[in-house]
Amino acid sequence: MTFPPVEEQLEVIKRGTAEIVPEDELVEKLKNSKEKNKPLKIKLGCDPTRPDLHLGHSVILRKLRQFQDLGHEAILIIGDFTALIGDPTGKSETRPALSSEEIEENAKTYLDQATKILDEDKTSIVYNSEWLGKMNFEDVIKLTSKLTVARMIERDDFSKRYDNNEPISLHEFLYPLAQGQDSVHLQSDVELGGTDQKFNLLVGRELQKDDEQEPQIALMMPLLVGTDGTKKMSKSYDNYIGITEDANDMYGKVLSIPDDLIYSWFELISDVDVDELPKYKKKIAEDPRNTKHELALSITRIYHGQEKAEAARKHFEKTVVGDQIPDDAPTMEYDAGTEVRLLDIVSDAGFTDSNGQTKRLIQQGGISIDDEKVSDKGYSVTFKGDTEFTLKVGKRNYAIVKSK
Amino acid sequence: MTFPPVEEQLEVIKRGTAEIVPEDELVEKLKNSKEKNKPLKIKLGCDPTRPDLHLGHSVILRKLRQFQDLGHEAILIIGDFTALIGDPTGKSETRPALSSEEIEENAKTYLDQATKILDEDKTSIVYNSEWLGKMNFEDVIKLTSKLTVARMIERDDFSKRYDNNEPISLHEFLYPLAQGQDSVHLQSDVELGGTDQKFNLLVGRELQKDDEQEPQIALMMPLLVGTDGTKKMSKSYDNYIGITEDANDMYGKVLSIPDDLIYSWFELISDVDVDELPKYKKKIAEDPRNTKHELALSITRIYHGQEKAEAARKHFEKTVVGDQIPDDAPTMEYDAGTEVRLLDIVSDAGFTDSNGQTKRLIQQGGISIDDEKVSDKGYSVTFKGDTEFTLKVGKRNYAIVKSK
Repeated sequence: MTFPPVEEQLEVIKRGTAEIVPEDELVEKLKNSKEKNKPLKIKLGCDPTRPDLHLGHSVILRKLRQFQDLGHEAILIIGDFTALIGDPTGKSETRPALSSEEIEENAKTYLDQATKILDEDKTSIVYNSEWLGKMNFEDVIKLTSKLTVARMIERDDFSKRYDNNEPISLHEFLYPLAQGQDSVHLQSDVELGGTDQKFNLLVGRELQKDDEQEPQIALMMPLLVGTDGTKKMSKSYDNYIGITEDANDMYGKVLSIPDDLIYSWFELISDVDVDELPKYKKKIAEDPRNTKHELALSITRIYHGQEKAEAARKHFEKTVVGDQIPDDAPTMEYDAGTEVRLLDIVSDAGFTDSNGQTKRLIQQGGISIDDEKVSDKGYSVTFKGDTEFTLKVGKRNYAIVKSK
Repeated sequence: MTFPPVEEQLEVIKRGTAEIVPEDELVEKLKNSKEKNKPLKIKLGCDPTRPDLHLGHSVILRKLRQFQDLGHEAILIIGDFTALIGDPTGKSETRPALSSEEIEENAKTYLDQATKILDEDKTSIVYNSEWLGKMNFEDVIKLTSKLTVARMIERDDFSKRYDNNEPISLHEFLYPLAQGQDSVHLQSDVELGGTDQKFNLLVGRELQKDDEQEPQIALMMPLLVGTDGTKKMSKSYDNYIGITEDANDMYGKVLSIPDDLIYSWFELISDVDVDELPKYKKKIAEDPRNTKHELALSITRIYHGQEKAEAARKHFEKTVVGDQIPDDAPTMEYDAGTEVRLLDIVSDAGFTDSNGQTKRLIQQGGISIDDEKVSDKGYSVTFKGDTEFTLKVGKRNYAIVKSK
């Protein structure tokens, strides 16, 4: 294959990145790669201690996929060895290490999910126990001799813990070195990571230089903000969308995000081409609601394919338009062929105490059917075979109303 | 064998110690040992990076010998593996690691010297590469997980370097852990070390507890003050007596120490029985000069045997009494059978400008022969076959005068 022009590659590579260290070396590497028609080795380490992936994890996996699509070599490292240490990054406490059985099982689960994003046929999967597991105490001594204690404590989370007298177990210092040794072993050209991985990625650069290799580029992606619109996506904040969630749940949860997240989600986790991003910026400003549907479609398509994604869109357009209805909304069924007054339906649902109250609500615009306000106090519904709508009464009361 | 009573053993063991942590546990161990007729395992690690031993090193080796004489088991660890790290204790800079060839050669040199002090037949010699060399990265992770960074930086020399922004290489943190692992492997009951080894010895205790062993006792010996009477004995201060020095040099250098060191040298590095130490305290007060000869005899005897030690004493009683003559003192020889005036000898030596000056010096008590002042201005020497004496003129001028 021939690689796209460097400028074109850069546009794809830089999409959504938080930082590239150093960018000029990346440009050099891309030029050489194109000249020699030799793909760059793009390294991504995954931590098999957290096997349940959510869209937050997909930010980096999609970046790896973009490199694949440009023709470069994706190397996915299952950190089965480093998991014995437990990555201390961003943790304010020493983490327990996993057993090798747990790690193996988690690695499998991880790969099942990651390959939904990556081009599986073009992904090299390696386990870092292959080389780290062969190192002996003497090798570790040599490895540790390459960094100083002060350099290690510089790391943000370590320095905070040190200053706060929170214990840092000595073995946590081995993690960045082991991760860096992976880069030395693989002779990686680029390593991907979240912004919280910067320190570890730069250790890889240092160890490669020490080994007289051309050092890797550290490419950092931002952390994805979760569905709540404030905190980074994380299981512990319950603001995440798992990549194994079914199409309807996934689609629906994307619809629930605040409007100001739409663009970054397009940029970081959708399958929309980089060229089209500016168009979406405009669309979001003009019609956030429908653009959010496009985002939900794009994301759902990645994990469930076009067909299921379309079905999810239909489901949501039909049943839940605009507002998100709560899980415990009652379903009310009326015989097909009958005509029922809205006053009676609302009364059946028990949402008001009297028809008078219902009429006042209608007058105030407080009752809607499929997100359309009802203004006619005498409105009635003729139930056909496929009638189904969402009734909203006041600010909080929802019901699914359909034919039986 | 049966062990001496615990109290008696304690008297020997505590001789000259700086600190025993904790002493009550040592008493318990001694009681159990005697009850079960089972010797304690006494561990001493030696650093094969510094193969030339001097009397400063003998402080701890003699302590180990005392344990042997009480019936306990001496285990001498050649730190061939830990030498790969280089003990950072007391160093203000990162130390270079040695090659395994250098280490092997040094270990041999070390043992040749150490066995002059130890009861060789009763000494187990082990190399810690035997077990540390078999540890892999995973084992090292487990080992390092047992201590925190803060605990490590607590160590005096580390904290000073850290506070002064002097680099501490990460691998230096592995040294105390490796040394501690030796204790775990050997299940040692007591580990000996200098006061600067306290941290390392206590790490051994912690690791043994973690391994659910009865933890070792840390027994620290003080650092020996060198011949200059001020600094600790060290090659770099040139205030040392090497244990391979010949008998006369050793004897003579012991004689050169200031009087206030005599007692501590008796206590720490002589072969005098613990019961006799109080007697020597008294003798030093009454007759430091002769007691120093006894010290020199005792120390020389350890390394060269009784006969050579006695010969050294005779040599010094004859040639250099009281003062120490400088190495560059001239030797003057006169034909046996002749009688020579002291005035002429002094003139021959060029120590004065005129006989008048020589006479004034005699009058002032400024000329002595073998430390006896000459008062007779007309004194002359009749040279016999074995005549040999030290002539001292004024404060600085010495000559060896003898028959030829």
